[in-house]
Amino acid sequence: MDQEFTSQVLENAVTELSRLPGIGRKTALRLALHLLRRDEREVTALGEAIIRLRRDICYCRECHNISENDVCAICASPLRDHRTVCVVENVKDVMSIENTGQYNGVYHVLGGLISPIDGIGPDSLEIASLVERVEKGDIDEVILALSSTMEGDTTNFYIFRRLGACEVKLTQLARGMSIGNEIEYTDEVTLGRSLLNRVPFTDSFKTN
Amino acid sequence: MDQEFTSQVLENAVTELSRLPGIGRKTALRLALHLLRRDEREVTALGEAIIRLRRDICYCRECHNISENDVCAICASPLRDHRTVCVVENVKDVMSIENTGQYNGVYHVLGGLISPIDGIGPDSLEIASLVERVEKGDIDEVILALSSTMEGDTTNFYIFRRLGACEVKLTQLARGMSIGNEIEYTDEVTLGRSLLNRVPFTDSFKTN
Repeated sequence: MDQEFTSQVLENAVTELSRLPGIGRKTALRLALHLLRRDEREVTALGEAIIRLRRDICYCRECHNISENDVCAICASPLRDHRTVCVVENVKDVMSIENTGQYNGVYHVLGGLISPIDGIGPDSLEIASLVERVEKGDIDEVILALSSTMEGDTTNFYIFRRLGACEVKLTQLARGMSIGNEIEYTDEVTLGRSLLNRVPFTDSFKTN
Repeated sequence: MDQEFTSQVLENAVTELSRLPGIGRKTALRLALHLLRRDEREVTALGEAIIRLRRDICYCRECHNISENDVCAICASPLRDHRTVCVVENVKDVMSIENTGQYNGVYHVLGGLISPIDGIGPDSLEIASLVERVEKGDIDEVILALSSTMEGDTTNFYIFRRLGACEVKLTQLARGMSIGNEIEYTDEVTLGRSLLNRVPFTDSFKTN
């Protein structure tokens, strides 16, 4: 599309907006024309929020989660259990786990998963810093909370090997049927694993 | 969705982004996390382009198209034919017509169409200013380039009535089969109108 813009300012805004993922020039133009009709205060607030986002957010020195300070709110909190570390792929996964309300430990954000096809090796991830944290000896349990995919499994196994020498309890998320799912619609691999890893019935009454 | 944000700056950016049309909180979060991974210069450019958009763009005193000055580039151009005025619904339609490369006159942007259901009457639109432009007597032809919908037809007819007393040529866009369309896939109303408004075969060789 080679739109003839009558305004340089508009064209510039459309170009910048269309750099966002999933937003083409048509959508960018629609967004820009929408913004033109809004209150100036509201549009300025959006622009400033975007600028502040990248300027004011850094990464926590401890767990590599996003943070506005050197150490994030979770790592700095005395109310959290600092002897339990949950290893996750990214910042979004921290939010997902926080939203469950079932976890009171701290995190370690890897920043990705091992994926040789995409050229992501262990050295591109925050694995060395995880080993270092564990080797300090202040941690009782490391929970591997990675996706149940080839990359997740590879990363799990790599971390398992690296932490082999450390005296730390290593656990991973339970895998099986989703809560609320019917047997009929559960895929066969998951169903097979759920059978193999069946647990005593009384365990299902467990709560945190 | 009640995401637990670990950062106030992130939450603020997500809230502002999700005010955009078609962007919910999930997409806003995805965009924000994308921006966090980008170069700071690039993100600042986006924020500033948005702020400038609303601050620096105003509307042309003559045609009500968007402009960075009191009078837009088209109205100010001595190369355009100022005796032909094309009446369009909005700014986007100006761009669409400019993109055809077939028009060298000036524009008049109504800012909408008459739509009693949506509470839009003639007074909410730039119709009085159009009549005023025509009454000055410097215009030879007014081209009605509005959508072929109920609202477009209503607005066309209203303008036709308002300009009735003026000595000006009033035309509207040709309606008929789309170029490249097959008879089989042309809807019946359009096909019927194309039959009724058939033109001499030699006219199809006309070019601008």
